[in-house]
Amino acid sequence: MKSDLDALMQARNMDAFIVFGNAENNPPMTYLTGGGHVSHAAVIKKRGEEPLYFFGDMERDEAAKSGLKLIPYSKYDLEALFKKANRDNLLAAALRLELMFRDAGVTSGRVGVYGFYDLGAIFGALSRLQTLLPEIEFVGEAREDSIFLHAMETKDEAEVNRIRRMGEITVEVVEKVKDFLTACEVRNDEVLLKDDGSPLTVGDVQAKIRLWVAERGAELPSGFIFAVGRDAGVPHSSGNPADLIRLGQTIVFDIYPAEAGGGYYYDFTRTWSLGYAAPEAQELYNQVKEIYDTLKDSFDLNAPFRNYQVMTCEYFESKGHKSQLNSKAPLDGYVHSLGHGVGLNIHERPFSGLLVGEDHRLKPGVVVTSEPGLYYPEKGMGFRIEDTYWVRPDGKMEILAEYPYDFVLPMKKWKPAHG
Amino acid sequence: MKSDLDALMQARNMDAFIVFGNAENNPPMTYLTGGGHVSHAAVIKKRGEEPLYFFGDMERDEAAKSGLKLIPYSKYDLEALFKKANRDNLLAAALRLELMFRDAGVTSGRVGVYGFYDLGAIFGALSRLQTLLPEIEFVGEAREDSIFLHAMETKDEAEVNRIRRMGEITVEVVEKVKDFLTACEVRNDEVLLKDDGSPLTVGDVQAKIRLWVAERGAELPSGFIFAVGRDAGVPHSSGNPADLIRLGQTIVFDIYPAEAGGGYYYDFTRTWSLGYAAPEAQELYNQVKEIYDTLKDSFDLNAPFRNYQVMTCEYFESKGHKSQLNSKAPLDGYVHSLGHGVGLNIHERPFSGLLVGEDHRLKPGVVVTSEPGLYYPEKGMGFRIEDTYWVRPDGKMEILAEYPYDFVLPMKKWKPAHG
Repeated sequence: MKSDLDALMQARNMDAFIVFGNAENNPPMTYLTGGGHVSHAAVIKKRGEEPLYFFGDMERDEAAKSGLKLIPYSKYDLEALFKKANRDNLLAAALRLELMFRDAGVTSGRVGVYGFYDLGAIFGALSRLQTLLPEIEFVGEAREDSIFLHAMETKDEAEVNRIRRMGEITVEVVEKVKDFLTACEVRNDEVLLKDDGSPLTVGDVQAKIRLWVAERGAELPSGFIFAVGRDAGVPHSSGNPADLIRLGQTIVFDIYPAEAGGGYYYDFTRTWSLGYAAPEAQELYNQVKEIYDTLKDSFDLNAPFRNYQVMTCEYFESKGHKSQLNSKAPLDGYVHSLGHGVGLNIHERPFSGLLVGEDHRLKPGVVVTSEPGLYYPEKGMGFRIEDTYWVRPDGKMEILAEYPYDFVLPMKKWKPAHG
Repeated sequence: MKSDLDALMQARNMDAFIVFGNAENNPPMTYLTGGGHVSHAAVIKKRGEEPLYFFGDMERDEAAKSGLKLIPYSKYDLEALFKKANRDNLLAAALRLELMFRDAGVTSGRVGVYGFYDLGAIFGALSRLQTLLPEIEFVGEAREDSIFLHAMETKDEAEVNRIRRMGEITVEVVEKVKDFLTACEVRNDEVLLKDDGSPLTVGDVQAKIRLWVAERGAELPSGFIFAVGRDAGVPHSSGNPADLIRLGQTIVFDIYPAEAGGGYYYDFTRTWSLGYAAPEAQELYNQVKEIYDTLKDSFDLNAPFRNYQVMTCEYFESKGHKSQLNSKAPLDGYVHSLGHGVGLNIHERPFSGLLVGEDHRLKPGVVVTSEPGLYYPEKGMGFRIEDTYWVRPDGKMEILAEYPYDFVLPMKKWKPAHG
């Protein structure tokens, strides 16, 4: 939680940090400021002190909503800095940063650098700044080890409620997509048709999904996946808009909306087959569902998340599939890790990969996905089931948005000839 | 244009560059790869050679759409790298980067660093990498000087057509907002009402704007501004969702949609007053419109963009307002610069601020905004008119989406008592 930041800084012997960038779509900045339309901003926080928020004057109303201590950039005379820098933009930026650090009382010590922002501009400015403030040591951290991903790992109730709200929107949209698809007319060759009699495309469905998410005030800042057949067999193929939609094909629908402006995410996947399913597809789906259910019954409070990745790999191997446990970088079978934390980042701590440490655990307050899957692009099939779970303070794992697990969706206007 | 990158590298004595991050919402990466759902990727380009695209296997379909030379991360044995790094995540990342640079044939020289990505992770990894590849000098550039902002500054026809398409969507949405507002019932106290008789809020209108943009397949990755009264007087206040909408207030509607997934932007503003306008508001609007029109008639091919900022400041000063020419960081009057380039970044070269160099010019192929405005938050008013112009190869400035400049919008169901 945010209140852990000081302790995390202390544990790393970090005296201060600076976060660069916009307040939107920039998780550490959104976390500290609450978001809003503030661009090219910065926050400097000294350990044990209140953060200082630097922003452009035109965005003073938005910045004020943060409740942080504010310093508008107009405090620093940009024209004078440019002259002093002989019109060298990087040096002028470094000179302003020097004044900002001095105003924050930070002129020495280890200073963490964070934010999703322009790498070149910050790399260049910090190099110049280093000569102006030689007593500061700027420190980078691997993403999964950063104090922000650690603080964000456990959510308070307000954060969980925001994720839950995104979950409600998610399942509303998923239900609308299901209703829409199953109500379509079907051509003799089993292709779905639009009202005007022309074939429905993956792109048509994707447009509707975007619209139904927007109607609910949410966004899709990391896209989404609605992929059919072979594309469903490539985990992160987002789907080919020109493809037609046929009965009996696997459809992987993975949707991860976020609050507008880069807020909290939800993450959810269902796999469908319209009208009927090939026996092999049904069998593979059943395997995914079986391990999904086994996992759900097995999650233990405080257990290392990777244990469940091992369990999932072992299960799929027992069914004859490849996994990361028996193959290096498999391209079919079970090819990814089981899940990940969800919050202001679509992927955050705790992670479940075989290479992560035992400190990635199902602690109270974490919000994680469980998403086993099987992928056979050569067979034109893919399968994944995913829900987002909250590890409650009482130790129970709660799915934040319930939704049925039907694989074959009956079509309202089509019946199997032999059925 | 993209084909300028090699010459720009040469001019800066840059031997190679690396771009980090996702292919979406990351302009340099989108520029090189064409976008798509590819995350945590990298592109390394040696001067005079084809770029090499590094990506995760699950996103191989999306990466392949780039047409670039591809190397999946699975080529590098992550488990072995972790062991070699003693499970130090930053060192493991640096060891993989070392292999990637070696595969790209880059082991010495000046290497530019680009991309919107996790500053801390890259800062940390490059610090480690520096000891592994000591002959490389990593180079940062100020944003406005970067080779990417220089290359992107001039657009080819395909890029202009994509911006134009966003312009068409923009004015369609603006027209829908105008039709919606002017069709509202009006209460005795001049507050606009919804169909159910309750007051219309700024938040209601903002929700409709989001929806109408999404319906057209575009996104609002940098938000938008629909601000009324006092908020209209603060240039980047996005508007208070709880505010009611009254006749005779200034409404600043600044909308900058982009292609889904972080593509090309359009940028557009109109200022409206519903039903009637106070005489002072009409007078200030007329001034903004007058200088807007004067500018339009004055733009000269290849002229420094900042000349028009000077012209605008001088005009507003002659009318008794503050500007950046006669005041440091004014909070009312004409408080910002005239315009900016528009492309994959909502703000890019050329810039028009008083501090930018004469190399920011209205060259053929640039796409820029012209957006004079006046701001009086204490009086509860703000005004801005903005269009996006393309400097055509024949030297003519073309507005990419025409839209009327009416200030007072007559209400369909309300007439002024004395009118």
